[in-house]
Amino acid sequence: MLVVFIGAGNLATHLALEMSRKGLRVGQVYSRTEESAADLARQLDCAWTIDPQAIRSDGDLYVFAVKDAALPAVISQLKPNNGLWVHTAGSMPMDIFKGYTSRYGVFYPLQTFSKRRSVDFSQIPVFLEAAREEDLNVLSEVAQQLSDHVEILSSEKRKRLHLAAVFANNFTNHMYVLAGKILEKEHLPIDVLRPLIDETAAKIHDMPPLQAQTGPAVRYDENVINKQLDMLTDPQMKALYQLISQNIHKEATNE
Amino acid sequence: MLVVFIGAGNLATHLALEMSRKGLRVGQVYSRTEESAADLARQLDCAWTIDPQAIRSDGDLYVFAVKDAALPAVISQLKPNNGLWVHTAGSMPMDIFKGYTSRYGVFYPLQTFSKRRSVDFSQIPVFLEAAREEDLNVLSEVAQQLSDHVEILSSEKRKRLHLAAVFANNFTNHMYVLAGKILEKEHLPIDVLRPLIDETAAKIHDMPPLQAQTGPAVRYDENVINKQLDMLTDPQMKALYQLISQNIHKEATNE
Repeated sequence: MLVVFIGAGNLATHLALEMSRKGLRVGQVYSRTEESAADLARQLDCAWTIDPQAIRSDGDLYVFAVKDAALPAVISQLKPNNGLWVHTAGSMPMDIFKGYTSRYGVFYPLQTFSKRRSVDFSQIPVFLEAAREEDLNVLSEVAQQLSDHVEILSSEKRKRLHLAAVFANNFTNHMYVLAGKILEKEHLPIDVLRPLIDETAAKIHDMPPLQAQTGPAVRYDENVINKQLDMLTDPQMKALYQLISQNIHKEATNE
Repeated sequence: MLVVFIGAGNLATHLALEMSRKGLRVGQVYSRTEESAADLARQLDCAWTIDPQAIRSDGDLYVFAVKDAALPAVISQLKPNNGLWVHTAGSMPMDIFKGYTSRYGVFYPLQTFSKRRSVDFSQIPVFLEAAREEDLNVLSEVAQQLSDHVEILSSEKRKRLHLAAVFANNFTNHMYVLAGKILEKEHLPIDVLRPLIDETAAKIHDMPPLQAQTGPAVRYDENVINKQLDMLTDPQMKALYQLISQNIHKEATNE
């Protein structure tokens, strides 16, 4: 199977390298920026281009791993061919390919990728969708070579899964940012929170998050909450502290 | 060194067992509830009591590991003795002991403890404070037997450290709760988010959280943000999504 990568960012890099390790042949990398295209192609030992017209047309699988906003334009620039076109975006519907080809789908690995960090791909859940039954089988076969957790999911459900991921990743990371800001003022490094951050994440392997919830907000302990609000000088952080605390209490008492 | 534990909850259990493993002698456990007192004492193979008047007075170290709200009452019930009294609370000042004894301090391990989960105590940062220099030395010696990360920290700084921990633990866990709620509606298990949750926490070992921040809120992509807001039906979750997104954008552009 010959794979063509459209995009050379973090996700494209991790996915292309993993496919290559699993014996799939990545034949070409396209990216708008020469540096990323050349860099990924070098790692894959394959050809690259920055010209959408020069994308080869004999690929079996075209993986569009670009930013959501760039996706429609890149799709419209690819010349029609007989390959299977998939994108990797949580929030974009599969139908974005409609009118450009009849063989299309989605290959969504639910993970956050950084260039510097390696991840165990076998543990990453991959969610698939395809316009045609036979293409879903092709995607399943590819996905199962990479991951132990392959599922079929509609565009509608996938965008809600992506929303959940925004809370679990983007918003969680923002809590780390705010914790780091508080420590910075005291000249304490974020390192002191690492064991706590790790254990907070690890607990979710053992119990539902609602059961793992602790802290003054659970019983809405106004004495502690007011003292902590007094320490926050930034009005937006104060507002956030208040809203999250109220919501923790609400979830705890709804049980 | 003879240690007496006041309290038999999660923190008391983990700390007492670790002290015992490190060769310190825990001689007695006091708790208001017979079941917890007896349970911890059984694990330590020591005596227990539910009568504050029956707490032995020949201890070298008294560890008060009870809920913040219970601390003042428990301290007032202990008969004066010559031991060193410490509490384990992030937000309580050291001076809470003033007037009851002249040998007092704080032993604050920064971690979230659950009965069912074992933790590597050597990795837990422990923050110390003592009214007397010589008692700080005693505490340092004890703490260094348990942990590789022992620091001295004032009450004022400790309460801010505890506030940072509320963001990193309580508020982070709440993000997991909300992510879980979104998935529940789609009949998807929280398991699908575990690799993402783990990687989000692990990234902080490699880069500052602000650098790890991704998602539509960084550039305040209104198109994506509005679509995601539309999916949230709960008004409080909507408000939270909006406030956190604004704040992510604010932090990203302050850089």
